[in-house]
Parts: sequence; C-alpha cells; structure tokens
Amino acid sequence: MSATAEAFGALHRDRAPGDPLVLPGPWDAASARVFEEAGFPALATPSAGVAASLGYADGSVPPREMFEAVGRIARAVSVPVSADVEDGYGLPARQLVGRLLDAGVVGCNLEDSWGGKDDAAGSLKDAEAQAEYLAAVREVAGAELFLNARVDTYVRGVADLDETLRRARLYVEAGADCVYVIKAPPDVLPALRDGVAAPLNALFLPGGPSVRELGELGASRVTFGPGLQRRAMAAVASFAGGLG
Amino acid sequence: MSATAEAFGALHRDRAPGDPLVLPGPWDAASARVFEEAGFPALATPSAGVAASLGYADGSVPPREMFEAVGRIARAVSVPVSADVEDGYGLPARQLVGRLLDAGVVGCNLEDSWGGKDDAAGSLKDAEAQAEYLAAVREVAGAELFLNARVDTYVRGVADLDETLRRARLYVEAGADCVYVIKAPPDVLPALRDGVAAPLNALFLPGGPSVRELGELGASRVTFGPGLQRRAMAAVASFAGGLG
Repeated sequence: MSATAEAFGALHRDRAPGDPLVLPGPWDAASARVFEEAGFPALATPSAGVAASLGYADGSVPPREMFEAVGRIARAVSVPVSADVEDGYGLPARQLVGRLLDAGVVGCNLEDSWGGKDDAAGSLKDAEAQAEYLAAVREVAGAELFLNARVDTYVRGVADLDETLRRARLYVEAGADCVYVIKAPPDVLPALRDGVAAPLNALFLPGGPSVRELGELGASRVTFGPGLQRRAMAAVASFAGGLG
Repeated sequence: MSATAEAFGALHRDRAPGDPLVLPGPWDAASARVFEEAGFPALATPSAGVAASLGYADGSVPPREMFEAVGRIARAVSVPVSADVEDGYGLPARQLVGRLLDAGVVGCNLEDSWGGKDDAAGSLKDAEAQAEYLAAVREVAGAELFLNARVDTYVRGVADLDETLRRARLYVEAGADCVYVIKAPPDVLPALRDGVAAPLNALFLPGGPSVRELGELGASRVTFGPGLQRRAMAAVASFAGGLG
C-alpha cells in the first residue's frame, strides 16, 4: 500500500477489545480540521453529512459535488481521509478509483444498495454483482485504497444474519479490507466479528452502546454517520435563538 | 426592485432604535437552514466563514467556489440571501452581477480593499475608483441587487472618521443601498448614522456592544462576520474530545 493507505489500514488491525479505531465524520474542511486537532488519527466522511452541508437529501448529491467536497476535506488535513461514496454512482471501477485518488483520499465506503435512502429491500443489490464491482475496484486500486464494504441488509429490510454473513464473506473474498454492516443490532456484532475474516465497522448511535461497548462486541472501527454533523447543527440551533 | 430584493431592502428601513435587522451568516446549506428555521427573515453569507468551511484562508477562495457555495446556500432556503463577495474578485460589473443573480442572491457586500486580510493601509482601494465600480454594478443590476458597500478604513490602518464618512457618502452617491464600516469603534456609529444617508451595517463582536446596543448606536443591520461559523466549530471541538 502507499504510505497513507498502508498507515490507514494499520490503524484497523490488532485493536484491543474495547478500544476500536474511532473515525469522526467531517462534513466540510473546517470540521475536518477540528477533528484532526482533537487528535484523531484519521477521518471518514459521511455521505449524509456532506449532503446536508451541500443542501441535498442523502443520496441526491451529484457525484462531481461529492468528489469536490471530499477533496476539500482531504486537502484540509494531514491525517488520512476515507470517503463515503455511496454505491459508487454507477461509475466504472477505473473512473471511481481515479476520482478517489484525485480527491486525495486513502479509502472509501461502498454500499450494496442503491436508490432513495428510505427504500426497503427493493434496492438491495445482487450480492455477486456487488462482489464483482468490489473486485474490479480492488484490481484497479491495488494497494492505494482501503476498501470498506458496506452491507445494507439491516437498512433494506433483510434483517437476516445468514444473508448478512454471506454478503460480508463474498465482499472480503473480493478484496474488501473491512466490512460495515450498518445498523446491525448490537447483539449480532459478535457473530459478525467471529464469522468474517476482516475488521468490522460499527455505527455509533445515540442511546445505543458506547464506543467502548461496540469495541467489546466486536467492532474494530466505529463511525458516526451523519450524527456529528447533526450534533453540530443542533448546537447552531441552540445559539441561533439568542442572536437577535 | 424584484420581489425578493425589494423585500430584502425593506427589512433595512424604518428600524426602531435598538431593533436592527439581524442577519446571521451561514457558511453552508445546513447552517442556512438552521438560521431560517430559527426565524430570521434573511441571511448574509460571510466570506471568511464560507472560506473556512471550504478549507481556504479568508481572501483565498477561488471565485468559482465562492459563487457555488453561495448558490448552494441561496437554494437551500426560501428567505432572501445576500452574499459577501469580497472586492468582487476583479470581475467587471456585468460579470459580477450575472454570477450573483445566477447564484440566486438578492444582494451583496463589496469591500473597498483588497489583498491579504492581514495587510494594513496599503490595500485600501482608491475611493473614487471604488465608487465607480459600485456605480457600474448598480447600473447593471438595476433594482435586482441590494448593494452593501463596505468601508474598510478601520481594518486597513486608516482609523479616520472624516475619511470614513467621505468614502461612505461617495458610495451612497454611487448607488449603494447600505454602508458597512467594518470594525468601526462603537463610539463612531452615531456620527456614521447621522452623516450618511443610508442604513448602517454594524459588526457584532463578542465582548462588544449587544445587538440592541448596536441598534441604539445607529445600526440598522447587524451581522456577525465569521463569528457564527467559529462558534459552531467551537461547539464541535467541545464534543469531539468526548467521542473516543
């Protein structure tokens, strides 16, 4: 791997239980700098947070605008940045990898569903086709990108552990470096950790397990989705009322 | 004036003392929506806040990126938005007005200095040349844009009330709808209010007079520069430490 993709990957390995890699999700260059200054060793952009900052519904950002936003974030910090690029926007692997590397990121999330974010099972992609896409991205990217394969079963109405495990294993065989079963119930995390030969990314949700608990359940990496962008905007709302 | 530029201008007129128009400064679409939902009737982008969100030093944003950011903000809300476009980026009046109207804004700030934001007097522009530029913008824009002419004497090492008044009057004669003497000491606001035949924009600074006090001193409009973007990032910094 290149220096930074290699370094980013290394952060995922050999985590002690209860001490997962915590990757805050910046939505613009300024928030990225704040997270870097807070001491985080890497960052991972959330598509929904970037979308909100740009004024779009999640899933509706034109690809050019998403890559530009991700590029601004990557340029703003010296720590490695991974980009959530949704389902790859239908781009051929070579184009996708080129745009990611041009943006200066060292990794990406790729999700196995498409369409409106409120759809259910109908928009889960064929697992074998997704594995082929991941393999193509891996082949083009070589060691230049850390691939985080998102498994969307639990957000697309297929809350089935066997199907989730099947997909996760297919994606790892295709070359994924990490598996992210978004909104997996906490009680399935141990089975995912034990059943998949790659680091596991878990989503932190307010009211759910703590970062430490997610780590103890099996997560090597914890992200926040658009949660931090929303928290920031809640802070803005709380002081906006007092401005007048 | 067009419906929205007219409506925006009307908000500046006949303010009761102590009740100036308060225009929060959004730096992205999400913050704009928060301020709109908080009930503010209009917004005014700060160039330094937008620059920070995009990852640039103030004064270093490429014009294309500034106009795109302003356009995203204007599209995100239904209230009128005015854009801080610094010194106009050297654009001829016709191009500047076209890009502002394309971005969907109803007004703009134009400042009478240029160059690095930390320079002193050397970068204050010739007042007559600035008045000519404002007159050209007014001629092209007609009633489609509300022009807020910034007078930079107090941030460029020319802390002189007579020169400030001379510039403000020249700009109003050239067609400016409002005058913004950035960082004017509070005690000169009454002289500016009495000496200039246009609404006066004052900058709110932490530790300085309150919004009400600025209004009582003569401001018809109060803005915050990049203060609110910085306050938001301070909030992010305060929760970032607790994420891990």
